[in-house]
Amino acid sequence: MPRAYALGLDYGTNSVRALVVDTQTGAEVGTGVFEYPSGQAGILLDASDPNLARQNPQDYVDGLEGSVRAALEDAAGTEGFAPDRVVGIGVDTTGSTPIPVDAEGRPLGLDPRFRDELAAQVWLWKDHTGHAEAAEITAAAKERHPEYLATCGGTYSSEWFWSKILRCARVAPEVFEAAHTWVEHADWMPAVLTGTEHPDRLTRGICAAGHKAMFHERWGGYPDADFLASLDPRLARVRQSLPDSTRTAAEAVGGLTEEWSARLGLPAGIPVATGAFDAHLGAVGSGIAPGTLVKIIGTSTCDLMVAPLDDDFSEAPGLCGVVPESVVPGQYGLEAGQSAVGDIFNWFVGTIRPEGETHGSLTDKAERLAPGASGLLALDWHNGNRTVLVDQRLTGLVLGLTLHTTPAELYRAFVEATAFGARVIMERYEEVGSAVERIVNCGGISAKNEMVMQIYADVMGRPVYLSRSAQTCALGAAMAGAVVAGAEAGGHDSFPDAVDAMTGVQDRVFEPDADRAAVYDRLFSHYRRLHDAFGVAGQSDDLADVMKDLLDLRDAVRSEASGDRESESVDAAAHEA
Amino acid sequence: MPRAYALGLDYGTNSVRALVVDTQTGAEVGTGVFEYPSGQAGILLDASDPNLARQNPQDYVDGLEGSVRAALEDAAGTEGFAPDRVVGIGVDTTGSTPIPVDAEGRPLGLDPRFRDELAAQVWLWKDHTGHAEAAEITAAAKERHPEYLATCGGTYSSEWFWSKILRCARVAPEVFEAAHTWVEHADWMPAVLTGTEHPDRLTRGICAAGHKAMFHERWGGYPDADFLASLDPRLARVRQSLPDSTRTAAEAVGGLTEEWSARLGLPAGIPVATGAFDAHLGAVGSGIAPGTLVKIIGTSTCDLMVAPLDDDFSEAPGLCGVVPESVVPGQYGLEAGQSAVGDIFNWFVGTIRPEGETHGSLTDKAERLAPGASGLLALDWHNGNRTVLVDQRLTGLVLGLTLHTTPAELYRAFVEATAFGARVIMERYEEVGSAVERIVNCGGISAKNEMVMQIYADVMGRPVYLSRSAQTCALGAAMAGAVVAGAEAGGHDSFPDAVDAMTGVQDRVFEPDADRAAVYDRLFSHYRRLHDAFGVAGQSDDLADVMKDLLDLRDAVRSEASGDRESESVDAAAHEA
Repeated sequence: MPRAYALGLDYGTNSVRALVVDTQTGAEVGTGVFEYPSGQAGILLDASDPNLARQNPQDYVDGLEGSVRAALEDAAGTEGFAPDRVVGIGVDTTGSTPIPVDAEGRPLGLDPRFRDELAAQVWLWKDHTGHAEAAEITAAAKERHPEYLATCGGTYSSEWFWSKILRCARVAPEVFEAAHTWVEHADWMPAVLTGTEHPDRLTRGICAAGHKAMFHERWGGYPDADFLASLDPRLARVRQSLPDSTRTAAEAVGGLTEEWSARLGLPAGIPVATGAFDAHLGAVGSGIAPGTLVKIIGTSTCDLMVAPLDDDFSEAPGLCGVVPESVVPGQYGLEAGQSAVGDIFNWFVGTIRPEGETHGSLTDKAERLAPGASGLLALDWHNGNRTVLVDQRLTGLVLGLTLHTTPAELYRAFVEATAFGARVIMERYEEVGSAVERIVNCGGISAKNEMVMQIYADVMGRPVYLSRSAQTCALGAAMAGAVVAGAEAGGHDSFPDAVDAMTGVQDRVFEPDADRAAVYDRLFSHYRRLHDAFGVAGQSDDLADVMKDLLDLRDAVRSEASGDRESESVDAAAHEA
Repeated sequence: MPRAYALGLDYGTNSVRALVVDTQTGAEVGTGVFEYPSGQAGILLDASDPNLARQNPQDYVDGLEGSVRAALEDAAGTEGFAPDRVVGIGVDTTGSTPIPVDAEGRPLGLDPRFRDELAAQVWLWKDHTGHAEAAEITAAAKERHPEYLATCGGTYSSEWFWSKILRCARVAPEVFEAAHTWVEHADWMPAVLTGTEHPDRLTRGICAAGHKAMFHERWGGYPDADFLASLDPRLARVRQSLPDSTRTAAEAVGGLTEEWSARLGLPAGIPVATGAFDAHLGAVGSGIAPGTLVKIIGTSTCDLMVAPLDDDFSEAPGLCGVVPESVVPGQYGLEAGQSAVGDIFNWFVGTIRPEGETHGSLTDKAERLAPGASGLLALDWHNGNRTVLVDQRLTGLVLGLTLHTTPAELYRAFVEATAFGARVIMERYEEVGSAVERIVNCGGISAKNEMVMQIYADVMGRPVYLSRSAQTCALGAAMAGAVVAGAEAGGHDSFPDAVDAMTGVQDRVFEPDADRAAVYDRLFSHYRRLHDAFGVAGQSDDLADVMKDLLDLRDAVRSEASGDRESESVDAAAHEA
């Protein structure tokens, strides 16, 4: 049987990546990247409002041809490969990244009337202009439909679908009126490829709908029109434009059109999978399965698990999404995440800028420090806390500062803080019934920084594996393409089959060290107290021992390390006293 | 009447300064500085123990001639000045800085047998090797003689007299045995100048004895021999070597010897005042009087007040010294202080080293920030907390960190933290009955940084004055010289007379601004909560509102500053909700 290939399209924040993958081996035979030309690295900004982040929909269309052509060219030398051996296409994008479209399904941003209107462009996931609207939606849902919040972590985010639409209705009513409906970027791309953009034919994926738009079959799909109308009467019309059902990424939207077949050089009619978010298909590309926590660690993290549909997750406080079949069919998709991880390290290196230091030099120095030796403890809330507190209005903290505290000590303390934050998430998963047997990390930081991975293993007390692929999102998208193609066409009949054939972990495994883990248990108990004291209203705790215990630990660790005679005699004297 | 001059000798941590001052005008007509040649900038260190800091007593003797000769030369051009117009000498030093001396009063460090023995040298104030011993002394005094602690802040410090002596007995018994007694540096210098070094003739000043060695007339002077023996039987012998009485800085130790007259070029027989600590005579040089808080702001601070002897300060928790006549006769000397101020700014600039930034550049940027605009709040405990918590095992903290936090914002937050720490001290002074009518700042930072001074005025809500002299400690020492000379000789009959004639404040006054003060009141209430939560055992508080209120304040301050339209509409929407 000739080899078969699937194409994955991964729409990131700054660029789109196309990846050609061998469906039987997972070999990644061709890659093409297209950087969005508009705005600053693809993002349209507004100097007067740091919360605003939009994108130009034309970049997405141009990026299709640019990235796929480059990937096919890159794959051309591979023995057995030919473009006509591509059997299916999958797509992932950022999200929630909704696009206002007209009655034909065409983005308003492409309409000459609205070309210079930021509200008519794509509302990128990291646009936070709707924070007041998010608070309104949360308050209204808490009062009238608490079930809407139960599946999305208890708080509706400013990053999400309805916050953005309501915000648009408030600040740009003419755009709102011109929009027939709003389409997630993840849904729009497959529609473009299959010619199904018209709102009457448009397929919505469960991933975006369930995690970001309060869609659930239990209450008949998207939120009730009356509820939306109570926020703003005009939202009822948007609700009417939405379908009552969704599809999973294992289901096709349609076949590649003749037009796109010609533009891309791929066979017409090959199936295109329903779109999903990058992190979700990244988890698939990392080999997600029950008991495996996949952490996609970049500027922030997404921490995903899947669990059987007959498990009960009706009480899962703090998880930011509990959506049937949002990752793979037959399983709950469980989503959690940290609002900032790599962003914190980047802030320290790039904004605080300790002279002469880089990520590499700080890592080299921080790696030589023993856990507890700095006396520092930090909270990783520089960008709020997504899981388990679901609160953007929290901030970072560091304590234990002395006149001798070094940049490398601070760097390590921030790394440790993100590991403690990761442990809180893991423990919450276990509390709600999803046991974590192993951790698979992927994303930029896992590839680049072994110290960070070892700290995660030591703090979380689990072996940490690294995904074999360096482009797991695009790989997961390609796997969706393989699944919608089916085994008969050279793809796979299910995601588990695709996971077996196309994913794997690296040989390097980071095992927790018992001694370091014991120190981290002690530090984590203090982290947890600070976490609750500053993050959970109604708590009270006497925190007066925190700084002292950190100093005691520091002194013990340092004295052990140096075996210093005088320190011992001090300890003896102190003990005597 | 011909002009008269007094000589002040100011023994600092790294150098000694001699200052010749006109007793009637306070004009500083000649200065000489001698840098200690030994060790690192005058400090003998031990690579294996960061707590150790010693000095070579020979440096003090060499510095006498070096600094005085230079000062006289510098003064030589002044009309009316001649060395024989110097009528008295005063001395201040760091402390507690005890010196082990032999039966003749000669420092053991000058004895060839002990020249290479660190324990035989001078135990500099910042030597913390005796921290376990300090804890022992505190525990024993709490149990058996709580009154010993009441005059020195409730906790006996590792920096102080008995901690160091007990430490020496423990780790260097041969030095301890060779030491006939221990003499504060402040007492040893006047003894050298007047030939009264012999232990039988040696004068001890109330300043060092009362603040650092638990001396009080109420219990017959130094601590009870039985009490000391219970710590270590060998301490009883040290107790026996000490006198039962002390003198104030307004009293002479004796007259300048013929030998030192010849070496320095000054009249033989002129009176030399009893020595005192640098900060105490610095307060005198800043014009201390009841109702005036003198803050000597350098790497750390000393915050001094004086109050009538008939006031009751038997309950003054947290003040680190309440000693009759330790600053001026007829008044209590009240001492408080912050363990680190300039050291925190120096740590940030010199150890964290934000690239391309200096104190100057950070100040320029920080000065343009409005109070509350950063959302940051810090605790100034990088070197522990001297007043009011008297706890070295506390550490610095900063919260409110975001991915946008800049070095200048952190710099300002640390400055504000030290101002909040200063306010805690001021409020404690007022709580125990010493009302603060005005603040006079002196020391390096007050001369160099107007932003810091304005922040102190705004945070403390009092006008902040700056001492006219840039060398207040040496000036205060010279004033002691003028007082022991007496009015008839061209000096003064009392410290208040000397204060009137020889001190003053600069024309620049930093007045508190009501709007900024209101913001700082709000920030200070949070500072106080963190202070108590982390610093005082047995407290409990729900801290979950702290980060949020800082963000609310930040947003309000920023929105006010920008008058931004969209922010207003967000506020309106939030309000509507």
